[in-house]
Amino acid sequence: MGLSVIETNYSSKTYLAKLDAYWRATNYISVGQLYLKDNPLLRESLKESDVKVKPIGHWGTIPGQNFIYAHLNRVINKYDLNMFYVEGPGHGGQVMVSNSYLDGSYSEIYPHITQDTPGLKKLFKQFSFPGGVASHAAPETPGSIHEGGELGYSLSHGVGAILDYPDLISAVVVGDGEAETGPLAASWFSNRFINPITDGAVLPILHLNGFKISNPTILSRQTKEEITAYFTGMGWEPHFVEGEDPEHMHPEMAKVLDTIVEKIAAIQKNARENKDTTRPLWPMLVFRSPKGWTGPKEWDHVPNENSFRAHQVPIPVDQNNMKHAPALLEWMNSYKPEELFDDNGTLKAEIAEILPTGDKRMAMNPVTNAGKLIKELNLPDFRSYALDNSVPGTVVAQDMAVLGKYMKEVILLNEENKNFRIFGPDETMSNRLGPVFEVTKRQWLDRIIEPNDEFMASYGRVIDSQLSEHQAEGLLEGYVLTGRHGFFASYEAFLRVVDSMITQHFKWLRKATDQTWRADIPSLNVVATSTVFQQDHNGYTHQDPGLLGHLADKKPEFIREYLPADANTLLAVFDTILNDRQKINLVVSSKHPRPQWFTADEAKELVDKGLKIIDWASTDNGGEPDIVFASSGTEPTIEALAAISILHEQLPELKIRYINVVDLLKLRSQKLDPRGFSDAEFDQFFTKDKPVVFAFHGYEGLIKDLFFDRHNHNLRVHGYRENGDITTPFDMRVLNQMDRFDLVKEAVLSLPGADKYTDIVNEMDEMVKKHHHYIREEGLDLPEVENWVWKALK
Amino acid sequence: MGLSVIETNYSSKTYLAKLDAYWRATNYISVGQLYLKDNPLLRESLKESDVKVKPIGHWGTIPGQNFIYAHLNRVINKYDLNMFYVEGPGHGGQVMVSNSYLDGSYSEIYPHITQDTPGLKKLFKQFSFPGGVASHAAPETPGSIHEGGELGYSLSHGVGAILDYPDLISAVVVGDGEAETGPLAASWFSNRFINPITDGAVLPILHLNGFKISNPTILSRQTKEEITAYFTGMGWEPHFVEGEDPEHMHPEMAKVLDTIVEKIAAIQKNARENKDTTRPLWPMLVFRSPKGWTGPKEWDHVPNENSFRAHQVPIPVDQNNMKHAPALLEWMNSYKPEELFDDNGTLKAEIAEILPTGDKRMAMNPVTNAGKLIKELNLPDFRSYALDNSVPGTVVAQDMAVLGKYMKEVILLNEENKNFRIFGPDETMSNRLGPVFEVTKRQWLDRIIEPNDEFMASYGRVIDSQLSEHQAEGLLEGYVLTGRHGFFASYEAFLRVVDSMITQHFKWLRKATDQTWRADIPSLNVVATSTVFQQDHNGYTHQDPGLLGHLADKKPEFIREYLPADANTLLAVFDTILNDRQKINLVVSSKHPRPQWFTADEAKELVDKGLKIIDWASTDNGGEPDIVFASSGTEPTIEALAAISILHEQLPELKIRYINVVDLLKLRSQKLDPRGFSDAEFDQFFTKDKPVVFAFHGYEGLIKDLFFDRHNHNLRVHGYRENGDITTPFDMRVLNQMDRFDLVKEAVLSLPGADKYTDIVNEMDEMVKKHHHYIREEGLDLPEVENWVWKALK
Repeated sequence: MGLSVIETNYSSKTYLAKLDAYWRATNYISVGQLYLKDNPLLRESLKESDVKVKPIGHWGTIPGQNFIYAHLNRVINKYDLNMFYVEGPGHGGQVMVSNSYLDGSYSEIYPHITQDTPGLKKLFKQFSFPGGVASHAAPETPGSIHEGGELGYSLSHGVGAILDYPDLISAVVVGDGEAETGPLAASWFSNRFINPITDGAVLPILHLNGFKISNPTILSRQTKEEITAYFTGMGWEPHFVEGEDPEHMHPEMAKVLDTIVEKIAAIQKNARENKDTTRPLWPMLVFRSPKGWTGPKEWDHVPNENSFRAHQVPIPVDQNNMKHAPALLEWMNSYKPEELFDDNGTLKAEIAEILPTGDKRMAMNPVTNAGKLIKELNLPDFRSYALDNSVPGTVVAQDMAVLGKYMKEVILLNEENKNFRIFGPDETMSNRLGPVFEVTKRQWLDRIIEPNDEFMASYGRVIDSQLSEHQAEGLLEGYVLTGRHGFFASYEAFLRVVDSMITQHFKWLRKATDQTWRADIPSLNVVATSTVFQQDHNGYTHQDPGLLGHLADKKPEFIREYLPADANTLLAVFDTILNDRQKINLVVSSKHPRPQWFTADEAKELVDKGLKIIDWASTDNGGEPDIVFASSGTEPTIEALAAISILHEQLPELKIRYINVVDLLKLRSQKLDPRGFSDAEFDQFFTKDKPVVFAFHGYEGLIKDLFFDRHNHNLRVHGYRENGDITTPFDMRVLNQMDRFDLVKEAVLSLPGADKYTDIVNEMDEMVKKHHHYIREEGLDLPEVENWVWKALK
Repeated sequence: MGLSVIETNYSSKTYLAKLDAYWRATNYISVGQLYLKDNPLLRESLKESDVKVKPIGHWGTIPGQNFIYAHLNRVINKYDLNMFYVEGPGHGGQVMVSNSYLDGSYSEIYPHITQDTPGLKKLFKQFSFPGGVASHAAPETPGSIHEGGELGYSLSHGVGAILDYPDLISAVVVGDGEAETGPLAASWFSNRFINPITDGAVLPILHLNGFKISNPTILSRQTKEEITAYFTGMGWEPHFVEGEDPEHMHPEMAKVLDTIVEKIAAIQKNARENKDTTRPLWPMLVFRSPKGWTGPKEWDHVPNENSFRAHQVPIPVDQNNMKHAPALLEWMNSYKPEELFDDNGTLKAEIAEILPTGDKRMAMNPVTNAGKLIKELNLPDFRSYALDNSVPGTVVAQDMAVLGKYMKEVILLNEENKNFRIFGPDETMSNRLGPVFEVTKRQWLDRIIEPNDEFMASYGRVIDSQLSEHQAEGLLEGYVLTGRHGFFASYEAFLRVVDSMITQHFKWLRKATDQTWRADIPSLNVVATSTVFQQDHNGYTHQDPGLLGHLADKKPEFIREYLPADANTLLAVFDTILNDRQKINLVVSSKHPRPQWFTADEAKELVDKGLKIIDWASTDNGGEPDIVFASSGTEPTIEALAAISILHEQLPELKIRYINVVDLLKLRSQKLDPRGFSDAEFDQFFTKDKPVVFAFHGYEGLIKDLFFDRHNHNLRVHGYRENGDITTPFDMRVLNQMDRFDLVKEAVLSLPGADKYTDIVNEMDEMVKKHHHYIREEGLDLPEVENWVWKALK
C-alpha cells in the first residue's frame, strides 16, 4: 500500500487499522517498561532474569493516553498542525516516552536508546529504575514542558504556552483526578484570556479515566448532561468520545477530533479575517475510557480494568516471584507484538509511516525545547528612569510606580516581538504598575462595559483579570517554559498560595539543567509587593514574608532573592533579571511613598555585588567599626538609617558601618553556594566579632541560618516577629521591634560596657511609650517619625 | 402594630418595609464606620473633628451582603432555623459587625460598645483603626468562624462546619472574586460529601457583585444560562435573585429564600424519613446586586456604584479634606437615619422586633464559638497498640499501619458522639490507614459501583474522595472550628499546596486567643507521611520537607512539630495531641517497613520531654561524651544508629551520646519560646562545645537557626539537601549525605586530631563508592544496608 493513499484517506479502515497497531505498540512497550529489563519482544521464553526485581510504576492512565496521543498524531498529519502535548495526569510516565520512542524522537535525543531490540531493552530497563526515567512526564521526557508530579497546573501551562504563538495548539490532557484540584478547577476560566487572532489555541482533553489511587473520580460519576453543563457553563463546547471497544472508539475518535480541529480552525479563520474578537466557544474533548484499558480484566477475583486497582502494577510479577508470569505473558502478547515490530525490533515501516515526522512530532515541537527560540528582550537604559538621589533621602517616591514607568517602555520596545507579558491576580493597579496602561491593556475576551470597566481590551500585554495566584503563576510558567519573558506581581503574603507551584518550577529547572539537550529558558520573575511592613490597614492576614525562607531552602544555583530598598535599586534589579535564564528571581519591593537613597551607580553596584558599605551612612571612615548596621528591604533600611542618625547624634565618636544588602543569598557560605562570599570577604564586610545589628524584611531565622557558617555570631536580627494587626506602617515596625528606637537600644546594649548607655536605653523606651500613647489616641504615627528626614552625618 | 402580626406574615408589605428599614440601618452604620469617629447619627452639623483622619476600609461588597444578612434573619424567624453566616468576600468587615451590633450580640460580647449614641460612636471609631477591628470578618467578629483575608476557603469551611450537625445550616456567601480562586472553584464539589440524614446543610450564596479591586469578575459577565449550567453541572440547583431596585428585590429575595429553605427541609425530611441517601440536588442562591449598591452613583464623572471604583472608600473625605463632606452627608442621609434610630441612638424597637433573638442570632450561634461545645474524644490506651521493643531494632513494622489500628479504635469509641473525622486527598489507603475501613467507610454521596469501588458508603468517618489538599485542609478546618476533632494526612511534599491555608488558620488561632470570649478549639492535626526520604520511586517532585521550616517561622505557642521515629512514638504523639487545643500539630511519620526502637515508656517520655538521651545507643555512661549524635525523623534515626554502630565498632573507646528528638521546637531558646529548654538544660543534652552530628529529616537551615542562640555551635547537620531522583530509599540518603557512611565521616572529622582517622574516612568513602556501583548495576541497595540490624553496643 502506498503512502499517498494513507495520506489522503485518514479515516479509512486501513488507516485506522494502522493506527490501532501503533496504539498496541505503545501499550506493549508501556507494559514492557513496567516489568522487563531484557527480552523486550518476548522472542525468547521469559526467564527470571528478564524481569525487574522491583517493577515500579503505573498503568492505569497509560492506555487511554496512548490512544489520545495516537489520534493526535493523526490530526497533525491530516491538518498539518503545529501541536504539542501536555500530560496532566500523574504517573503516566510511559506515555510520552513510548510515543517519542516509536516516532524516533527519543533516539534522536538519546542516541544510545536505539530503535531496535537492544535499544528497546535499555528503554525498558531505565524506566523507574534508580537514576533512570521518572514515572511521570518530566524534564528528561522529550516533548514535555510539564511535569506530572504535583497535579493541577496542566491547563494553565498549556494556555500560557499558546499566548502569542498564533499557530500553535497545545493538546492538554487533564486527568479526572487532577480536575478535582483547586488550581485546575479555576484554570477552566482561562478561555477568557485567549485572543483568537494573536494567540494560538488550547485543546483541553478531559480524560475520564474513572478512578484515582483508591477512589472513583468525581467527574466520571457525573452524567453526560452534568458534564456538558459544567463545561458549557465555563464557556467551552464539550465533545464526547466514550467507550471501550477499539473497533468503535477509533472511528469515533477520528470523527470527533476532526470536528474539533476544524472548529478551532474556523474560529481562528473567522477571527483573523473579520477581526472578530468575540470570545469564541472553544471546543474541548471529554474522553472516557476504562482505567487500565486493555489490561487484565480481573485480578485476584476482583475487577482490575475499570477499577482503582489498575492504578499501579496490575499483576504481581517480579524476578523473585514468577508464579504469575503466564498471566503477564498473556497480557503482553494480547497486543500481538509479532505484528508490530520487525526482526530488528523496530516498529514496522507500514505502521511507522502514519507518524508525523521532523518537528511535526509532538516530542520534537520546538516550543517544547524553547530555550532555542528565545528572543532577547529589548531593554531601555534603566538610568533614564532613575531618580536623582544625589542627596540621599530627600526624594520621596513609590518604587513600584517608578518601575511602572520603566515597564511601560519595556512593553513598547518589545511589542513587535510579542514576547513579554505581565501577570497578576487583579493587582496590577494596586501594585502601582498603572503606567503600563498608557501603552497596553488587560487582555480580556469577554464583555467590556465602559466606563464601569477600565483598561480592558481583547488584546493587551497584561493578564490580571482572574483573582487567582495559581493562574497568574501557572500562565507565567507556561509562557517562560515556551521561551518568552515576563513577571508575576502579587501581594507578598499571598504568594505563599503558590509556594508549591514555585517549588515545582524550581525542580523542573534543576532537572532540566541536567539535560544537555535542553537549552536554558528565561527566568521566572516573581515580585512580592504590598509587603508585610506595609500591610498596615489590611492587617494580620496579609502579612507573611516567608517566601524568602521557603526559596532559600532550595538549590542556590536557581534562586535569587533581591530586596531593593528604593526605586533605583529596583530598576537595577530588573535590568539584571529580565534577560537572565534558568532562575527563579524573587523581588521584594515597596509600593508606598518612601524616601529614596541610592544613585543609579550605587544601585547598580548594590545589585552587581549584592551588598555595599554605604559611605554616606557610615562613620568608620573605612576603618574597623565599633558596630555594624545592616539592612535588607525597604522599611528595614529606613529604620536602620534612622537608628544610625539617632545613634550618631547620641554618640558622635562611635564608629558605625552601614551595609545595605540587596542580593540576600550572597551572604551564604561558599561551602553551600559557590556564589557566596568567601569567609574573608564576608569578614571584611561584617567583621569577625563586632556587633551586627541586622534590620530584616523577613523572618529572623533565615539570617541566623546565613550567619551560622560565618565567624561572626555577634548578630542581632530584627525582622518580622509575626506580630501584626490593623495599624500604621510605623506601628507595624514597633510591634515587631524592627523600629529605629528598638534598633538603637539593641545597638548600645551590644557595645562593650553597655551599662554606660542606660540613658539612651531609657530615652528609646520613652519614645516607644510615647508612640504607643499617641497611636492609641490619634491613630497616627508620631510626627517626629512621620516627618523624619535623613540628614547627612556631621 | 403588634408583634404577632409580624410573626405570622413574613411577606407582608409591613414586614418587608421593616426589613428595608433594618437594611438601611446596617448600610448607614457601615458607611459611618468608614468615615466617622464622632457625631455618629449626624444629629449635629458635621465638624472636621467628627471625621477620621484616614478613612480606610471598603464599601463595595457591604450593601449586598447586608441585604443578604437581613433576609437570612427573616427566614431564621419564619422557619426557626439554626443558621450561621460565613462571609467569604474579602473586605466586608462592616457586614457582620453592623448586623451583630444592631441585634445586640455585639454589645453582649463587647459591653463597652453599647446600643446607643456613645456606643455607636465607639463602634465607628474602632473600625479599621490602629488596634481596632479588621476590615474583614475576623476572630474578633461575633459569629465568625472564617476570616476574609486570603480568599478561597469559605465553602470548605461552611461544609466542614455542618458535618455531623444535622440541624445546622451554614449560609456561605461566596464573593465572585473568591469564586475565581482555585480552592473555591474546587470546593463546589463538596456536595458529594454531605449526608442529608446525619449532616446539616450548606446554603451557598454566590454574590455576583460584579467587580473586584479593579477588574470585572468572570462569573458576573457570564449569562444566566451559563451560570445555571455551571452550577447544575456541579450538582447544585441555582436560584436567582437579581436587580437593584429594593422595591423589587425585597419580595423577590423573600420568595426565593423561602423556596430554598423549604427545599432544604424537604430534602432532609425525605432523606431522614425514607433513609434515602441519593445525592440530593441541593439548592443554592445566585444573588446579583451592583457593587457599592445604594452608594454614590458617580464620582468624579465616572460611575462609582456598579463599578470597580466602589471597592474601597467612594468619596474622598477626611479630617483634613472636608471639601466633599456635603456629598458624604447626602449619601449617609439617603438612608434616613432619623427613621431608624431613637433618641438614644438605639435601633427603633419596631424595626428591631423583626430580628432573631438569643442564640438564633447568627452572631450568637453556638457553633461560632464552638470551644464551649467540645466533647472530649474518648481515647484508647495507646500502650495497648504499642509494639514490643524490649530489644530495640528487632521488630520491623509500618508506623502508619500501627497508627491505623489505633485509629480504628478511636473511631469506634467516638462513633456515638460523631465528633471525629479523618480527611485526605485520596491517600488514606496509600498512607496505610487501611485498618479504619474495618469499622467505617469513606463518606461519598454519589454512585457507588462495587466491586470496582471499595470502602465507600453514604455515611462514614473518612472523607478522602476528592484529590484536593485544599479541600481536605478546608473541611478539617471547618470541622475543628466548630468544635470537633480530626486530622488530615497527606503526602509530605503536597502539604506545601496548603502552606498558606495553614498559615491563615494559625493567624486565626493567634487572634482568637486574644478574644477572652472565645473558648479554645481542638487543635488542627496535620500528618505528613510518604515523606521526602521514602519518596524513592515517586521521585524528585514528591520531595519537600519544608513545612517544618514554614511553620517554625510562626508564633511558637501555636505550633508543634513532632517527628516520631517509630510506631510507638507515633502512638504516643497521637495520645498527646488528639485532645489538645488551639494548636497546629504537624506530625511527620513513616509508612514503610522500618525497624522499631522505643518501648511505650520511652516513647511517652520522648513525647512528654520532647527529646531523650537513649542509653542503649550511648557509650558515655551518663558522663561527658566525646561526641553527640542526634536525630529527628524516621530515616535519620536509622542512619544515626547505624552510624553509631559503625563508629563504636571502629572506636570502641569513643564516648558517644545519642539523643532522639521528637518535639523539635523544644530546642528553641527560651528567649523566643517559653516552652524551650533553658540554656543550662540544653547544654546538659548537647554540651557546650562537643561536636554534634545531627541527622535531620528536613532542610538544614532550621536546625542551624535553632542552635544559633545556644552555646554549642559545633554543629554538623545532615538533612535534606534538595538532591532527589527516582531511586531507592537508601540512595536518597546517600544523595543527601544523610547516610550512615557520611555521618561516620562527619563524626570522625569533627574529633580532635581528625587526621588519625584517615582509615575510617577512606573506608566510608569506599562504602559509598560500592553503593554507587551496586545501585547503578542492580538498582538495589547494598545487601549490608538492606539487611542491617541494630546490635546492642558491646
